[in-house]
Amino acid sequence: MKATSTAADALQVGFQQVRAASATLVAELPVEDLGLQPMADASPLKWHLAHTSWFFETFLLKPFLQAYQVYDPAFEYLFNSYYNGVGAQYPRERRGQMSRPTVATVLDYRRHVDAAMARLLAVGANEEVVRRTHLGMHHEMQHQELMVTDLKYALGTQPTRPVLPQATLPPADHQSARPLSWTRLAGGLTWLGADADGDDFVFDNETPRHRVWVDDFLLADRCITVGEYLAFMADGGYQRSELWLADGWAWLGGNNDGPCAPLYWYQQDGTWWHYTLAGARPLPQAAPVCHISAYEADAFARWAGARLPTEAEWEVASMQAGAAGNWFEDGNFEPGPDPGGPLAAMLGGLWEWTSSAYGPYPGYRPLPGALGEYNGKFMCNQLVLRGGSCASPRLHVRRSYRNFFHPPDRWQYTGIRLARDP
Amino acid sequence: MKATSTAADALQVGFQQVRAASATLVAELPVEDLGLQPMADASPLKWHLAHTSWFFETFLLKPFLQAYQVYDPAFEYLFNSYYNGVGAQYPRERRGQMSRPTVATVLDYRRHVDAAMARLLAVGANEEVVRRTHLGMHHEMQHQELMVTDLKYALGTQPTRPVLPQATLPPADHQSARPLSWTRLAGGLTWLGADADGDDFVFDNETPRHRVWVDDFLLADRCITVGEYLAFMADGGYQRSELWLADGWAWLGGNNDGPCAPLYWYQQDGTWWHYTLAGARPLPQAAPVCHISAYEADAFARWAGARLPTEAEWEVASMQAGAAGNWFEDGNFEPGPDPGGPLAAMLGGLWEWTSSAYGPYPGYRPLPGALGEYNGKFMCNQLVLRGGSCASPRLHVRRSYRNFFHPPDRWQYTGIRLARDP
Amino acid sequence: MKATSTAADALQVGFQQVRAASATLVAELPVEDLGLQPMADASPLKWHLAHTSWFFETFLLKPFLQAYQVYDPAFEYLFNSYYNGVGAQYPRERRGQMSRPTVATVLDYRRHVDAAMARLLAVGANEEVVRRTHLGMHHEMQHQELMVTDLKYALGTQPTRPVLPQATLPPADHQSARPLSWTRLAGGLTWLGADADGDDFVFDNETPRHRVWVDDFLLADRCITVGEYLAFMADGGYQRSELWLADGWAWLGGNNDGPCAPLYWYQQDGTWWHYTLAGARPLPQAAPVCHISAYEADAFARWAGARLPTEAEWEVASMQAGAAGNWFEDGNFEPGPDPGGPLAAMLGGLWEWTSSAYGPYPGYRPLPGALGEYNGKFMCNQLVLRGGSCASPRLHVRRSYRNFFHPPDRWQYTGIRLARDP
Amino acid sequence: MKATSTAADALQVGFQQVRAASATLVAELPVEDLGLQPMADASPLKWHLAHTSWFFETFLLKPFLQAYQVYDPAFEYLFNSYYNGVGAQYPRERRGQMSRPTVATVLDYRRHVDAAMARLLAVGANEEVVRRTHLGMHHEMQHQELMVTDLKYALGTQPTRPVLPQATLPPADHQSARPLSWTRLAGGLTWLGADADGDDFVFDNETPRHRVWVDDFLLADRCITVGEYLAFMADGGYQRSELWLADGWAWLGGNNDGPCAPLYWYQQDGTWWHYTLAGARPLPQAAPVCHISAYEADAFARWAGARLPTEAEWEVASMQAGAAGNWFEDGNFEPGPDPGGPLAAMLGGLWEWTSSAYGPYPGYRPLPGALGEYNGKFMCNQLVLRGGSCASPRLHVRRSYRNFFHPPDRWQYTGIRLARDP
Repeated sequence: MKATSTAADALQVGFQQVRAASATLVAELPVEDLGLQPMADASPLKWHLAHTSWFFETFLLKPFLQAYQVYDPAFEYLFNSYYNGVGAQYPRERRGQMSRPTVATVLDYRRHVDAAMARLLAVGANEEVVRRTHLGMHHEMQHQELMVTDLKYALGTQPTRPVLPQATLPPADHQSARPLSWTRLAGGLTWLGADADGDDFVFDNETPRHRVWVDDFLLADRCITVGEYLAFMADGGYQRSELWLADGWAWLGGNNDGPCAPLYWYQQDGTWWHYTLAGARPLPQAAPVCHISAYEADAFARWAGARLPTEAEWEVASMQAGAAGNWFEDGNFEPGPDPGGPLAAMLGGLWEWTSSAYGPYPGYRPLPGALGEYNGKFMCNQLVLRGGSCASPRLHVRRSYRNFFHPPDRWQYTGIRLARDP
Repeated sequence: MKATSTAADALQVGFQQVRAASATLVAELPVEDLGLQPMADASPLKWHLAHTSWFFETFLLKPFLQAYQVYDPAFEYLFNSYYNGVGAQYPRERRGQMSRPTVATVLDYRRHVDAAMARLLAVGANEEVVRRTHLGMHHEMQHQELMVTDLKYALGTQPTRPVLPQATLPPADHQSARPLSWTRLAGGLTWLGADADGDDFVFDNETPRHRVWVDDFLLADRCITVGEYLAFMADGGYQRSELWLADGWAWLGGNNDGPCAPLYWYQQDGTWWHYTLAGARPLPQAAPVCHISAYEADAFARWAGARLPTEAEWEVASMQAGAAGNWFEDGNFEPGPDPGGPLAAMLGGLWEWTSSAYGPYPGYRPLPGALGEYNGKFMCNQLVLRGGSCASPRLHVRRSYRNFFHPPDRWQYTGIRLARDP
Repeated sequence: MKATSTAADALQVGFQQVRAASATLVAELPVEDLGLQPMADASPLKWHLAHTSWFFETFLLKPFLQAYQVYDPAFEYLFNSYYNGVGAQYPRERRGQMSRPTVATVLDYRRHVDAAMARLLAVGANEEVVRRTHLGMHHEMQHQELMVTDLKYALGTQPTRPVLPQATLPPADHQSARPLSWTRLAGGLTWLGADADGDDFVFDNETPRHRVWVDDFLLADRCITVGEYLAFMADGGYQRSELWLADGWAWLGGNNDGPCAPLYWYQQDGTWWHYTLAGARPLPQAAPVCHISAYEADAFARWAGARLPTEAEWEVASMQAGAAGNWFEDGNFEPGPDPGGPLAAMLGGLWEWTSSAYGPYPGYRPLPGALGEYNGKFMCNQLVLRGGSCASPRLHVRRSYRNFFHPPDRWQYTGIRLARDP
Repeated sequence: MKATSTAADALQVGFQQVRAASATLVAELPVEDLGLQPMADASPLKWHLAHTSWFFETFLLKPFLQAYQVYDPAFEYLFNSYYNGVGAQYPRERRGQMSRPTVATVLDYRRHVDAAMARLLAVGANEEVVRRTHLGMHHEMQHQELMVTDLKYALGTQPTRPVLPQATLPPADHQSARPLSWTRLAGGLTWLGADADGDDFVFDNETPRHRVWVDDFLLADRCITVGEYLAFMADGGYQRSELWLADGWAWLGGNNDGPCAPLYWYQQDGTWWHYTLAGARPLPQAAPVCHISAYEADAFARWAGARLPTEAEWEVASMQAGAAGNWFEDGNFEPGPDPGGPLAAMLGGLWEWTSSAYGPYPGYRPLPGALGEYNGKFMCNQLVLRGGSCASPRLHVRRSYRNFFHPPDRWQYTGIRLARDP
């Protein structure tokens, strides 16, 4: 490639970097680790590697690259995730039962797609190709985050608790958490969301910009810590029905045959430990509590005399917050310590549950065609999370980003930032 | 009681009228009909009769009536619905397996409670007693609606399809529906919700009044008809994945082993019929389509190039709409024909699905104590419906009322009013 | 009817007595009790009353009584249990959701059928009519036993534990059980089973007589008592995997979240009680243990260093045993005390689990037509029980009778008689 | 090892051959294939490789080899199948979620165990060691058969239908099946089963020898063919309830949403194909039908006016039958063609369903200790199969061998040999 710094070159480089990052994630893992699907929601890493390639093949190479040779026609079915507009899909819950194609073949598929994409981007991509390439890159970044969380689930729920070689052990927990302080934010009529035609990439679900009325509110300067969560547990948090949403109480098994601590926590000889991708370690008291469901976040907030923020409140506050995260790209696979200051670490620490149901913004229009299935059809029964986590690629984190999961989901890096009325 | 027209007398009379209405509903049914629980959500009518009495006993008679004699201490457990603050509850899904107390005993329990309530109200009720009595009356009205819908489900899913004697057959369907027209509504910053300290009874979840920004929008002047819904079906509505939310498509069985028509519809000799509490009849083309899930409402809206309204939009529009319903209290157990005019029949026809998730209004505070469980703990995983139906007691319908059900629920009288962006 | 004592008269009388016994069982119960179906296997008593009439209508009146007027054509579908040869069936697990026909209508149906049967039998019944009438009478007796056990389950699993008025409380338990003694039985080649053409009624599954080799064996003189079973429990019987069949251990929940005592046992203030149709009472130590699964029977036997008998062994031994039971027809709805003597109470106490799978005897031929579905199609996945219980009509108990249930079933009156090798 | 041909040397050689055969089976498969568990019953091949080694380590090396170094203490838990007497077990249904130990580690574990076993056997094994070594070898042979069937299921249910390289394609199907003929066998009182103290290895469940009375009977000279089974299907076999056991009919989904052909059969362009480990091919009409449940076998027999044999009948007849199988050890992974002659291919073709429930022989005693769990605790809810299949190691097939599976199981090589009364 020539050293001229054109936008096309930048796209080529960006594309290659994103693609390489996926391969880097799995480079040191045995093949066996890449085929696991320990629950329907956690797909095999091999599947992620193939599906992200399928995305480029389906939405870019087939329609836009002349004389493109499809790698294997069967992959259209095998690696379609949920795009009914493209065709039928191999059942999601059986992805872990697919030993073929092998990892080696999938990596070869990736090379095939990468080479073809290089050709496509080299010939001078038209606007739609550029737009879709960006979409595909952000799609792949989303799947990198899922690769981290799905791997953590696949390894962390095995009795042998294997580790990811490139994960570094977080520093020991000498720190005490500072007392919880609050920043008061002025409400009013405000424009939120993103402009679909802006310079920076955004997903369709972040658009259009629209007006929202927000009352004045207080937002916590840091996330809730492990130590604070242990206090909630010690105070009978999991046993007191008055703290829980009805669905949350049912999720606990009503009378507590269900969860009684965050995911990955376990007791050993009277001490609480938690599993990290760098290995198990005693619970770090000052670190943010992580891997909790929206039900747990909501119950904690009620116990603390506070509440979860709405997504509008979160976005308003985020305008004043700086990014400060731990990034898995640096080997940090756990949310980092509190950097201090007001509204600290809103971006890049962990996903913060909001109380807002995931729905369309006023005037929302999904992308045309099968790509319209990317976001819009999931706007029901889920809650919005904001902020990005240590497992999010740096380039993927932004203030308007709307992540969404079901209230009981815990295998993402999810935590609590409290809000209050003045 | 003296004939002076005091507020206390009015409360006595109102209380008696509400209580009598419940008994009237079941007066002509055989005992066998009153014990059925054909699904967990549809409780036996006998249970409703007892539980509404339990409500008065628990929240009024026990704390406020001196020397009140509890009817049967076992009822505290048997007829508690979901108030963990009161104590343990007989499992909801087994209510239909409770042959004792018998219907006769439950009616005796009602008389016992009514007599005690009369004593309590006669002595000059304090403010809290008045407030709770109103709450209990509205609670009972809610259960009257459930009695109608649960009975319809219990009878309508039996092979013999029995009828409710007092239900009158809707008039034959000679009418043609008028073409769908729209009313344009001006948005802006507006106050919605109800004031907790207002003159009229409201539930805590309707409060507080709060500001919402609403963009200009169009709302349909009438609900979608059976004929329009049949056109959606004829156009492959249930088979086209692009019309459905992902969860809706899954609810259909993905490839359609699930629902393929509204609840209570069935085909006989090539004709579509539907069951009503007055008996089965051929589908009335001009009547509003009813007994559909939020998924079906949403898919229809997408098919029609429109969308469901938000609850804020609905409430804004309702300010300009007059009530005009069919009321079961008059023997009408189906939503009535379109009365014509702009924004017709928003109140009292059928419940209209909105796209809004059920959540707390800004500044929401639940009632203190166990009564705080009435509404607040259900603010997750449900959608708001607005308007009131033919099964709602007249006195129970109001513009700020927020009903809520899960997206797949169909046994309520639920229908579709479309919205559009200008 | 003339007072001459012909076989036809005897049949008339016998028929009427059997039919009357069913009605007597429910005569003092409120209508509410007759509609319950607390589990799929326990049908509403109303259903039993109707189904037994359906049997006579379907297999006798329709084919053999000229000008018979069907009571209600819908009943062919509603009250067919499992005879695919007759036609489709209302789903078994929803029998409790059928409020119509009402109890009054079902009793009227019974009278209609009884009157028609009287006409059919009066005209001089042919051989097939006589044969089928006997079959129908024994069919009804089977259902009387099920009415008792299904009622016990429906009442005994309600929190209020209602009673059956005609059930008499068993005498208090002053007795000590005698030590367990054994009778040695000589094996050899022996003829077992019944002759299809014999004088006495037998079901097809008891035929034909056939040769079986049986080794010498010992059989316990009495059934295992409550006291002995408590000793098994105190010795960790439910916690020791080595005592259990693999399927039994899984049924316990592997690590014991499943059953940990016989059905109807419960602890109250440190004492074990059990529910009977005459009311709850403290466990009677010397009474036979009852309402246990085959898994529990087998585990107890292994704990006791013994085993369950085969059905051949049981039948060989029964030739030397006299009937001595408690009979519900006398108001006794629990198995009676040990009458003493060798091989005591083999007939009419409780059903004794054997180790034999329920299968066809060599040369077995089911009845022709739909009646062939009566027994033959169930010859898989069940175990044989022998002896008859207190809930069996006296006339229904005989040495060759083969009852069959699934190993986990506990709502019949089932107990343990041990066998040993010499 | 010295070249003298002692029994100890023979045991060494035999041990090594059996162990080597397991490794040979998987030698040409990618690692990905070895971790799959497509249903709870079909374990990953990696697990089989580890578990069979665990068996030798647990029951021979730990108790009998001085100074034996356990390979990894965690394996006691990870690779225990169901021996409660040894300790807790990793949940069976999650074996496919265990990426660690890797395949390479498991193969190293095998070498470690093999080397230790060589030392144990070299020092002059005592009687118990010899006995358990034989047991371990036959245990491993059982698992080799499961490796074949589990692999077939894991590969054959993938959309890509991969093949096992060493499997050879069966010859094309030019042959016509000979007409079905029958051999009449004389019954009488006969000794069946095996002697625990005999020269040849037998499992405890084949003992003791015991007397059984068998009536005269006819047994088919060959198994039912694919062509005959297609005739059953063409005659509505899967749609006619009168042909099916009640549990079989329920397994079909009652009204046929369940199976409608043997496992691995599928239609393509109007032709029936079936999957084999050597690849898919059109159905061979003259080959024996295979991969059917006991319900299908029983329904076919009823359709054909015949029945399944009892296991006693089968064993009586097998005395006159010669082995003639296809063996996977020769690359044949499908049952072979009919060799002709009376009672042909009873040993080594496919497993033949009998009508006999799997239970203990009279006087049966399980092995002492945890090894007693090998067979005895499964004697409930299963049926006996006889004969051995193409997936059975040659040395593992014998006349007294009792295989057992649940009636719906189809992933073993199971077929039909009919019996009739004279």
